[in-house]
Amino acid sequence: MNQLNQLTERIIRRVNVNLEEFDFDTESFVTNTLDHDKMLEFYAFYGITSQHPIYFHFKNSNIAGSYFLGKCHVGRSAIYKSDIRGDELKRKGDNLRYKKDVPLVEDEMFTIRDSLLYKTLVHSNSHNLESPEEFSIRNTISAHYANIHGSTLEGCFLGPFATLDLMNLHSCIVGEFSYVQAGELFHRKIDPGTVWIRNPHFEFKYKFKKEILDNFVGVNSSHQPRGIIYDFVKAREQDYEKLFDIMNLAPIEAPSTSAVNRYAVVKGKINIGENVLVAQSAFLDNAVMGDGSNAQENSYIIHSTLAGRNVTAHGGKIIHSDIGLDTFVGFNSFLNGKPDARIEIGEECIVMPHTIIDPDISIKIPGEHLVWGFIKSEADLKDHTIAFDDLAEVRDILKIGKLTFTGMGSVFIDGFRKRIHQILLLNGALFQKDENRGHAQDDQNISFNTIQPYRTGTRRGLYPSIRIKP
Amino acid sequence: MNQLNQLTERIIRRVNVNLEEFDFDTESFVTNTLDHDKMLEFYAFYGITSQHPIYFHFKNSNIAGSYFLGKCHVGRSAIYKSDIRGDELKRKGDNLRYKKDVPLVEDEMFTIRDSLLYKTLVHSNSHNLESPEEFSIRNTISAHYANIHGSTLEGCFLGPFATLDLMNLHSCIVGEFSYVQAGELFHRKIDPGTVWIRNPHFEFKYKFKKEILDNFVGVNSSHQPRGIIYDFVKAREQDYEKLFDIMNLAPIEAPSTSAVNRYAVVKGKINIGENVLVAQSAFLDNAVMGDGSNAQENSYIIHSTLAGRNVTAHGGKIIHSDIGLDTFVGFNSFLNGKPDARIEIGEECIVMPHTIIDPDISIKIPGEHLVWGFIKSEADLKDHTIAFDDLAEVRDILKIGKLTFTGMGSVFIDGFRKRIHQILLLNGALFQKDENRGHAQDDQNISFNTIQPYRTGTRRGLYPSIRIKP
Repeated sequence: MNQLNQLTERIIRRVNVNLEEFDFDTESFVTNTLDHDKMLEFYAFYGITSQHPIYFHFKNSNIAGSYFLGKCHVGRSAIYKSDIRGDELKRKGDNLRYKKDVPLVEDEMFTIRDSLLYKTLVHSNSHNLESPEEFSIRNTISAHYANIHGSTLEGCFLGPFATLDLMNLHSCIVGEFSYVQAGELFHRKIDPGTVWIRNPHFEFKYKFKKEILDNFVGVNSSHQPRGIIYDFVKAREQDYEKLFDIMNLAPIEAPSTSAVNRYAVVKGKINIGENVLVAQSAFLDNAVMGDGSNAQENSYIIHSTLAGRNVTAHGGKIIHSDIGLDTFVGFNSFLNGKPDARIEIGEECIVMPHTIIDPDISIKIPGEHLVWGFIKSEADLKDHTIAFDDLAEVRDILKIGKLTFTGMGSVFIDGFRKRIHQILLLNGALFQKDENRGHAQDDQNISFNTIQPYRTGTRRGLYPSIRIKP
Repeated sequence: MNQLNQLTERIIRRVNVNLEEFDFDTESFVTNTLDHDKMLEFYAFYGITSQHPIYFHFKNSNIAGSYFLGKCHVGRSAIYKSDIRGDELKRKGDNLRYKKDVPLVEDEMFTIRDSLLYKTLVHSNSHNLESPEEFSIRNTISAHYANIHGSTLEGCFLGPFATLDLMNLHSCIVGEFSYVQAGELFHRKIDPGTVWIRNPHFEFKYKFKKEILDNFVGVNSSHQPRGIIYDFVKAREQDYEKLFDIMNLAPIEAPSTSAVNRYAVVKGKINIGENVLVAQSAFLDNAVMGDGSNAQENSYIIHSTLAGRNVTAHGGKIIHSDIGLDTFVGFNSFLNGKPDARIEIGEECIVMPHTIIDPDISIKIPGEHLVWGFIKSEADLKDHTIAFDDLAEVRDILKIGKLTFTGMGSVFIDGFRKRIHQILLLNGALFQKDENRGHAQDDQNISFNTIQPYRTGTRRGLYPSIRIKP
């Protein structure tokens, strides 16, 4: 058996051990997902800038088509067409303020071991107090377009389009299209289509109806995705492959304060404002990116206008929509407007992660509203939006439709607003007069190194070991 | 001062110290040659195969546009658009037979330190008994299209189109278009246009007339090349740049026993036989490559036919010519046929390194002849060719024109034939029924990793440190 087969066998066995209590076998997912010939076709690349500390170490792994930026160790893993962005990793001397001060003695680093990440995004930094210098993913399999955001993982399986946000997970299964931000979980199985935020101050819990979710993101018996959202991204996959063919692409026209990553797809009529960040594997097609807006990894902005200071989180999809100033669109949201059924969202709204809006006639959401769940028509707004002023009144519990919110509404809103401000700050959206530099300013002059697998021999399909430092 | 400036300053100072006795200042060469902005434009690449032991280590260097294959350490150096091919490096356990047996305790490795190699080829393996595991180039500057072939160097300056072959050089200056294979030299200055082979058994010495040489390869006061040969290569430089733009080129049609490197230029009507090797930075334009032929680095085969088992050594240029079976064309030879003045060379000839044939009407050299020096017309053949049978008669000294040969002619011919056989063997030209594998078979499935310099900051123009292992 060649070493690539040995590698995938080992990953299957390890994750299965972790998930034994659920009688969950990852083998059919892995064998149906990984096409070893395709894993030979692509090259991986890692970005070098003068703004980030550099350390890359790849060993005994296949990392086909993946993008690495920031300190990273990958060992005995298969990382396929994934984005591992490390420009928010903590630095030596930083203080992790979380109950107690935890000063960092080294730069933080990703360590990914004995894992398979398939078209997965990994970003932010570890919120695990036990190992602040290590953003660790171990014995874990994540499926198509999952997001691992500031979350350390051990022995987990993440379904397609699942998002883990700023938490720690041990021996858990997370269903497809679920968003979880719940501190720390052990040996839990999260149902598909769960949107769940829990912290000491409040809890937000929503669950998609099974018949609706199945329509947008379902899986078959081997956990392979299907449905409208998967078809949508699949239809655009080949646009990305072109980015790999040409070595030096002509840069996209943009102000000097903005960064458009050369591994983003940019087509049609585009207008890029100041302090704009377009990350790798973002997709712009006829888009207006107002000042301070961003399009993060795997986000799509199509025939849409972002007025300014808009966050489009990882995997967010904005189609035939007009988004007001300061409005946030969360992870994997699917704003599926049509040419004759546009979506208009007012200023300072928060579109919760994993929100689906799929109108047949134009729909409008006023400013300063929270938006969640599934919205098909105006009639759905009642059960899936709430004005901030009304939410701020909630002190104990709120039930609307399939949402249950407990805790202080005002704390929830304030916390969310602070986080959005922090995201804008990190992304360089608030850069002015040489202050508040962020990714939009720092990620402009990336140079890319590429790396290819062995093409023959017993190591066929594996990448050579590489260690790179300043 | 940025680090790239510091680097070039250091190289200048070190080489100048080595060459102090000659009152030779390398500064004007370096400052006129290196364009720091251009050094940011290109990427370097290193090839990975399952047939060669892998180790690459680049540190504090600029290696723009260069090609590395085989174990290599580059430190504090500028290697610009150079080919450092390591597929003939010796391996652990090999025996260096040279008077005494010298068994190797480690794989051999290139180490290049404090040096500037500009469009230089480095190939073969060290013939230095003192350090058989290290092919070392130190405190050395080599100019455009020099060849460093199996030669360790310390404190040297090589002029444009100079070739060092299987020897050791310490604190020497080698003039432009000189070929030297002379064991070991200390503190010597070799005149331009010298073709010199010396060993315990014989000596071959020829020197181009200054006025002829100046026409083909001259230099100005800062050692920058000019002349017909330099103009010839310069006119074709941009064909190479296209190879850098596309990531995955369609492979050239060739039998499964042959290798056409993807960093070779191939245009016009091409016919590739069995067991053919076309190395990186070779240039084919309307060429017939007979079975077992090769086109080595920086060689050009244009509107020409190679009948079979032909060696075209590094930098050899064959234009409007027909080359017979088993005929060898040495380093940097310039066979400048024209559409109405073709060059025909018979079977089993040896065209000495640095031979120039530049006819105005068609010219024909019969088989089994040695060919050297400068040939403009049939009249020149008398003083620049000799039949092997006649040369074999020489037992003491032979003077023809500007050639002086001393020693046994038969030993010279036998030695040369053995070496040609060895080159064919190494190149895989004699591969049959799974025996005699060589570069043509082993270099087919190279995967390439690319590496780019820092684009900003104090390290701008330097490449990040990288260490790569199996």
